[in-house]
Amino acid sequence: MDQSLPSARLLERIASPADLKALPAGDLPRLAHEIRDEIIAVTARNGGHVGPNLGVVELTLALHRVFETPQDQLVFDVAHQGYVHKLLTGRGGAFFRKLRQSGGASGFLYRQESPHDAFGAGHAGTALSAALGMATARDLRGTGEHVVAVCGDAAFTCGITLEALNNIVTSTKRLIVILNDNEWSIAKNVGAISAYLNRISTSPTYNKLHHDIEAFFKSFPAGVEMNRVYHKWKRETKDFFVESSLFEKFGLRYLGPVDGHNLELLTKNLEFAKHCDVPVLVHVLTKKGRGLNAAISSPEKFHGASPFDPATGESKKAAPGTAPSYQDVFGQAMVRFARADPKIVGITGAMPSGTGLSHLAAAVPGQFFDVGIAEEHAAIFAAGLATKGIRPVVAIYSTFLQRAYDPIIHDVCLQNLPVTFCMDRAGLSPNDGPTHHGLFDLAYLRCVPNAVVMQPKDEDELVDMLHTGLTLQGPSFIRYPRGSGLGVPVKPTPAAISIGQAEVLREGSNIMIWALGPMVQDALQLADRLAAAENLSVGVVNARFAKPLDRALLLSHAACIPLIVTMEDHVVAGGFGSAVLEALQEADCPTAVERIGWPDKFIEHGSNVETLRAAYGLSPDDIHRRVLDRWRNRQAQSVPAEA
Amino acid sequence: MDQSLPSARLLERIASPADLKALPAGDLPRLAHEIRDEIIAVTARNGGHVGPNLGVVELTLALHRVFETPQDQLVFDVAHQGYVHKLLTGRGGAFFRKLRQSGGASGFLYRQESPHDAFGAGHAGTALSAALGMATARDLRGTGEHVVAVCGDAAFTCGITLEALNNIVTSTKRLIVILNDNEWSIAKNVGAISAYLNRISTSPTYNKLHHDIEAFFKSFPAGVEMNRVYHKWKRETKDFFVESSLFEKFGLRYLGPVDGHNLELLTKNLEFAKHCDVPVLVHVLTKKGRGLNAAISSPEKFHGASPFDPATGESKKAAPGTAPSYQDVFGQAMVRFARADPKIVGITGAMPSGTGLSHLAAAVPGQFFDVGIAEEHAAIFAAGLATKGIRPVVAIYSTFLQRAYDPIIHDVCLQNLPVTFCMDRAGLSPNDGPTHHGLFDLAYLRCVPNAVVMQPKDEDELVDMLHTGLTLQGPSFIRYPRGSGLGVPVKPTPAAISIGQAEVLREGSNIMIWALGPMVQDALQLADRLAAAENLSVGVVNARFAKPLDRALLLSHAACIPLIVTMEDHVVAGGFGSAVLEALQEADCPTAVERIGWPDKFIEHGSNVETLRAAYGLSPDDIHRRVLDRWRNRQAQSVPAEA
Repeated sequence: MDQSLPSARLLERIASPADLKALPAGDLPRLAHEIRDEIIAVTARNGGHVGPNLGVVELTLALHRVFETPQDQLVFDVAHQGYVHKLLTGRGGAFFRKLRQSGGASGFLYRQESPHDAFGAGHAGTALSAALGMATARDLRGTGEHVVAVCGDAAFTCGITLEALNNIVTSTKRLIVILNDNEWSIAKNVGAISAYLNRISTSPTYNKLHHDIEAFFKSFPAGVEMNRVYHKWKRETKDFFVESSLFEKFGLRYLGPVDGHNLELLTKNLEFAKHCDVPVLVHVLTKKGRGLNAAISSPEKFHGASPFDPATGESKKAAPGTAPSYQDVFGQAMVRFARADPKIVGITGAMPSGTGLSHLAAAVPGQFFDVGIAEEHAAIFAAGLATKGIRPVVAIYSTFLQRAYDPIIHDVCLQNLPVTFCMDRAGLSPNDGPTHHGLFDLAYLRCVPNAVVMQPKDEDELVDMLHTGLTLQGPSFIRYPRGSGLGVPVKPTPAAISIGQAEVLREGSNIMIWALGPMVQDALQLADRLAAAENLSVGVVNARFAKPLDRALLLSHAACIPLIVTMEDHVVAGGFGSAVLEALQEADCPTAVERIGWPDKFIEHGSNVETLRAAYGLSPDDIHRRVLDRWRNRQAQSVPAEA
Repeated sequence: MDQSLPSARLLERIASPADLKALPAGDLPRLAHEIRDEIIAVTARNGGHVGPNLGVVELTLALHRVFETPQDQLVFDVAHQGYVHKLLTGRGGAFFRKLRQSGGASGFLYRQESPHDAFGAGHAGTALSAALGMATARDLRGTGEHVVAVCGDAAFTCGITLEALNNIVTSTKRLIVILNDNEWSIAKNVGAISAYLNRISTSPTYNKLHHDIEAFFKSFPAGVEMNRVYHKWKRETKDFFVESSLFEKFGLRYLGPVDGHNLELLTKNLEFAKHCDVPVLVHVLTKKGRGLNAAISSPEKFHGASPFDPATGESKKAAPGTAPSYQDVFGQAMVRFARADPKIVGITGAMPSGTGLSHLAAAVPGQFFDVGIAEEHAAIFAAGLATKGIRPVVAIYSTFLQRAYDPIIHDVCLQNLPVTFCMDRAGLSPNDGPTHHGLFDLAYLRCVPNAVVMQPKDEDELVDMLHTGLTLQGPSFIRYPRGSGLGVPVKPTPAAISIGQAEVLREGSNIMIWALGPMVQDALQLADRLAAAENLSVGVVNARFAKPLDRALLLSHAACIPLIVTMEDHVVAGGFGSAVLEALQEADCPTAVERIGWPDKFIEHGSNVETLRAAYGLSPDDIHRRVLDRWRNRQAQSVPAEA
């Protein structure tokens, strides 16, 4: 936890997996200790996935001792447990210390960042499918490399993992699955498979077996033919295999449970798995947060933590006067609404604290459901509830809601069922990067009939919109960003918002800015600046609805204002501005429009929103210039602004 | 199979489930026979899901004898096996005889069609989640109804079903799952779970057990306390439960396998399940196509059949001169390409014949993968293959590709991997209706960076686009409709199409129509008509690309042509026309645009495309009128058409 990072450390000598392999086994515990110190020091400053990475130090060391990347393929599910892997594959030092900052290491894995990253990720549950593709490619091409998927137990709550599990035996004979079982996703794991794994891991039989396996592996001579050893072992542990048959039913050979912090045992099991001629699952038990007491005692907080004091684990205090987050305001509103109406329930896909639904879980647990990393199920489960008069609120980050796209269309919107989706992390999620930016939801929802799509300008309006959504007879979608609101007080009694009604915040005669969500604040500043610098009369509309759009108001503006500017924290292709263009075209209005939003590119991670906006021509200066250029251009065209 | 349908039939006396319950048990076999005759007669004329419905006649009769709809909730997965249910719930007679036609019964279930349809569907794998929502709602509200999910074994290849399975025990204590095991999805089922079910169903132990259960149930007296009976039974069949433990590991009580054509046994098992105090799965073995020899011998053909001769099972011959279908042209091209390049593979999600990939499966089986109803896995599996130099072509209907939306963004496009998606059934699928229309794909793909989205004007261009996609270094998406192409010969050697390059088919100076895919033919006819009737000079562009758009060509048209018309078989919100508006706005072109496409509504099923187009203002006359109105309106505005 020393931030001076002395150069005598072993870690500084590891520039590649070859350096790791050259270390004497006796040095590994010291290296593991140094890696933990480095992870704690860096995440304490930058925030990041502390707990998951502290848990996989020995496992990752063992993987890189046994396998040869980049020839062998290591696929880490979610890839939020890849810090150790980064430190061992040439991405330590200054690059790692800028973790999740502009120019530094990503918080996830990316094929572009290193040839050792076989597959990028940021969403859970993809590793088995990707690894199965790689293994099948190897079989087709007749090359011999190993493919290893490292999945948390939480990945097994996700349908994609289970689809892949069903396909393994029909696709390949050689695949190694590491089940990294720490009993947590972000929150405590849920569901039948989790309970099953817990039964395996805690029963005295298995704990005894665990020691037996260790003794057994210690006994076999180097170079002995592995399958014969396996069959002997299987005979000796027969009872165990009856119970472990969940994975055996899927055609996988099961090894474990293995102590995930015992390097010798891990190495031997992986060596054994490497020589198996059937797909094999190695069940590894790890302790999330190992090496940091605060992380062990608060696993959910330290899953993905904001900066903290490495000595005490205390989070860095927010600056005085920081407004409450949208998440807390949402969670507290859910408590209030659920207490007042027993038909209102909240549903999360393994994200109670990230979404703020943890408030509901604590206060009204009977009206709270955590379904695991199962966004499709969450949406259809909500649809089922809604058919019977329950009012479900499904809280899923914008980017993860992509998982539920078909259920949104086929189950919720087609049946016009009153389900309210609360899309957190809509817009940029700067430290996390492209897997977490919520930049597509307006485009993918705007085309779906029956959908009502809204975004509040502040946290009080969020509560109004939630209230409004809960009164509708059909589906509603509310998007809002990560982090603090504006500090606006939340009214004691929420107001119902008329569907499709925008709010004029400021009148103007030259330019009218239609802004969505937090962009309303940017719009007000831009309006001030254009008025001050250019003497233009610039109005601002809080659009509120991406769908249905307030066409009447828009057309009344188009009839007399020569330029309409749209602002959204979303890609411009198909977004809110595109909806404005469509409405103007349908009314045959030749009014000029400038659309401000993200370009047609995946946006990398960065230190903050401002840095990333500047990198993509979206700084306040850039926007000011673009709007002015458009204004002057249209003036030069001298198109009459008649109706 | 008699099409005169004599009124002396029992079936005519069944107007509701109460009428069914009033029938003496001895009459049920006759009723079952009549139902089969009716289904065969109607599907022989109209086409439809023959095999799945013939297989569930006794099962559906038993369900309606035991449960009380609409109080009790029957949720049929996919809902393509709901014909028997329709016939028993007041939707027989003329309404059923117009199955899949305008004004007749839908081929699927809809909440709007009947209160007996607890949940609509058309995509597989949703029933367990929906039923779990309903059961949870019942528990929350303290009502007492039964909730029954009827799932095919194919549903268990789908991740959503497995997500729900993982959540059952944590959500409710009362849910009945019927596993309707016929060993087929549309094609023969794939994967580990299917193999497991087959082991259960075919082993002599279970066949013996099957008879034992029958004898056992016959032995217990009416009214006996069911749980005690169950525990006795469980003791007596202990060995069985060890093997059946897949479902027991998920916390479900397992009953079965039960002969799905033995009404007495079915009824007793369902009565027993009704009284269980834990979630229960009843494993029912049915014969797909039972009652029609042709359907038994060709289960895939008779899954969803086009009209056929009920006596012989021969499909109605296509009219002489009918062009080959897009599906056959695609499948044959895949065979050609895969033979020439062993790196090219085809992937389907349980739709080999529907997509045309059955040609590849037959000709080059080593380069063909059927992953089951697992669209998310299919896309990520393809991404994994692509990382290792394989060129995967994933053939999924447009509407089912909604399932893979997150993998498309997060795994394929973000990593810019060369996966080619072939989206069959893009546009209207008239007989199937809203669950099967592929009307959203342009909107949901156009916002995703790195995506190349194309649509061919004819079947030869489809092959060119497939060839082109296979040469790209990143992802590509090709959409095309169901059914016949134009009869254009396919070139022996495909041509590479320059990315983002449209094709001018006809020059014009007043109006330029930009059309996508089959709408190009409509555009040519419209151009002829406008020229003949109004003396307008109308050009036609085969747009080819929805993304990237041919901006250079578009802007050159906008500079000198006063009206641009877009035509697409897709919703207008966010679609191709919207992309045209965006490009014109970015270049500040005030050119008038008329966008032709589907409105913001879910489109019902209908007899054919023409009927549905007419119902939504999209007949050739309607379009002609709209374009002309727009032309006149813009002329009246007398906006100069300068650059």
